[in-house]
Amino acid sequence: MSFLDKLTAAIRRNGSKLCVGLDPTLDALPAGVERSAAGVLRFNQTIIEATADLACAFKPNLAFYETLGAEGWRVLAETVRSVPHGIPVIADAKRSDIGSTAAAYAAAIFDGLRCDACTVNPYLGYDGVAPFIDRPGRFAFVLCRTSNPSAGDLQDLVINGEPLYRHVARRVRDWHRPQELGLVVGATDPVAASAVAEDATDLWLLAPGLGAQGGDLAASADALGAAASHTLWNASRAIANAGHGPDYAHQARAAAQTLRDRINDALNAINPHASQS
Amino acid sequence: MSFLDKLTAAIRRNGSKLCVGLDPTLDALPAGVERSAAGVLRFNQTIIEATADLACAFKPNLAFYETLGAEGWRVLAETVRSVPHGIPVIADAKRSDIGSTAAAYAAAIFDGLRCDACTVNPYLGYDGVAPFIDRPGRFAFVLCRTSNPSAGDLQDLVINGEPLYRHVARRVRDWHRPQELGLVVGATDPVAASAVAEDATDLWLLAPGLGAQGGDLAASADALGAAASHTLWNASRAIANAGHGPDYAHQARAAAQTLRDRINDALNAINPHASQS
Repeated sequence: MSFLDKLTAAIRRNGSKLCVGLDPTLDALPAGVERSAAGVLRFNQTIIEATADLACAFKPNLAFYETLGAEGWRVLAETVRSVPHGIPVIADAKRSDIGSTAAAYAAAIFDGLRCDACTVNPYLGYDGVAPFIDRPGRFAFVLCRTSNPSAGDLQDLVINGEPLYRHVARRVRDWHRPQELGLVVGATDPVAASAVAEDATDLWLLAPGLGAQGGDLAASADALGAAASHTLWNASRAIANAGHGPDYAHQARAAAQTLRDRINDALNAINPHASQS
Repeated sequence: MSFLDKLTAAIRRNGSKLCVGLDPTLDALPAGVERSAAGVLRFNQTIIEATADLACAFKPNLAFYETLGAEGWRVLAETVRSVPHGIPVIADAKRSDIGSTAAAYAAAIFDGLRCDACTVNPYLGYDGVAPFIDRPGRFAFVLCRTSNPSAGDLQDLVINGEPLYRHVARRVRDWHRPQELGLVVGATDPVAASAVAEDATDLWLLAPGLGAQGGDLAASADALGAAASHTLWNASRAIANAGHGPDYAHQARAAAQTLRDRINDALNAINPHASQS
């Protein structure tokens, strides 16, 4: 089964285009959860259980596990195993390297951790991306326009009248692998979202930056237009850290439900004839 | 002590600008070494012991450890601990992310693994780099021109008449942190090396791609000119995999010695008045 088949089945089943980020830090664990690798795993499993019928994907960012060393890597593998079958897991790894090394990263993420997809950085070109998609059923979201304040340092440099990130979008489009390649476009920049949607009409998009990073859902969905129908919306801290006390699972669930519904409302507002569920 | 103080002391002590890459794969372990995480650690420790007085730095690439999962992360930490005091360790991680996440990566690499420096990807701009250098004694080499065949996909895109990688070089230069920031410039492209040396005269360079990747030492050194005196030359497979039998430590040492001397000869050829040792 391809990643997109698994993803779209999850979207239909849960009526959701919400991707739940799993980016735990010891400091932000709710009261009562042990500040340890074991506590992080218990926290993740609780968040997954509380939101699995409201999400179309989970997205752990590898950085937060690496800070815990070897134990963190074990927690990450266990976290991936804790996601119910039928819900894809996107490893937010932002990896890239020369071909033979990128292949080692792909083996770590797909064979070792058993993730379904990952994020990759485009700076090394096709060599650095290919090992992630030359495997049946796997998928890579290539960073195009990121959600951080200094995203424009490189991504906005103008080449033939257009910013670098648009060239990245078209380059990925021209690799002609829409079943295996998508783009990361921050929900923090509707102008960029609109341009990328125009450049790469067929590609699935992953839009991080809702919630803690201040992304604007309605403006982004509007900017994406038709492309909003093949966009995943990620929120991490806004869901997993919605509550800080013993009812944190309930708070996370409520936050996920609210955001899932807001996403569907935004999609209905731009295309009232498409059913989201 | 700053990274550059530690590095230049090692360069002087060992008369060497050779950085030895530690990129083990189970398949390439010599005969007689167990194909396991324990075997990888033993192999790394043997290579380190055989070359530590010929190298100015060691550079493990994280991908090869991540393929071994949690055990791999433990082997990586042990490998770093096995490097003699006084020889810096550069984590070849090619990380970058939004600021708070890049800070988690930096914590993993510097606090967790106790590396001295790391490689970072420039695509996310300054936010993605700053957390790696905003710590006393740490250093980051920013990818500028990489050594892989498709490096030019993005890096050669022309902005105001000059390729993207030159803009990266100047941007890093203009961040004015030469004590904490250097550049990665593949030894496979002398034209690029020459341009980067011109753009960022003060920055330390890390030149991978000698050996298995076919980089040309003499041509690269010549192209770098004066910048060759503040360039680290990395070889990984050409040293660690020089031998495949029981004498692999001896073979690795011989390969390191030959390459160290070739580097010094190349530097003497372009600047006969500077002593390399």
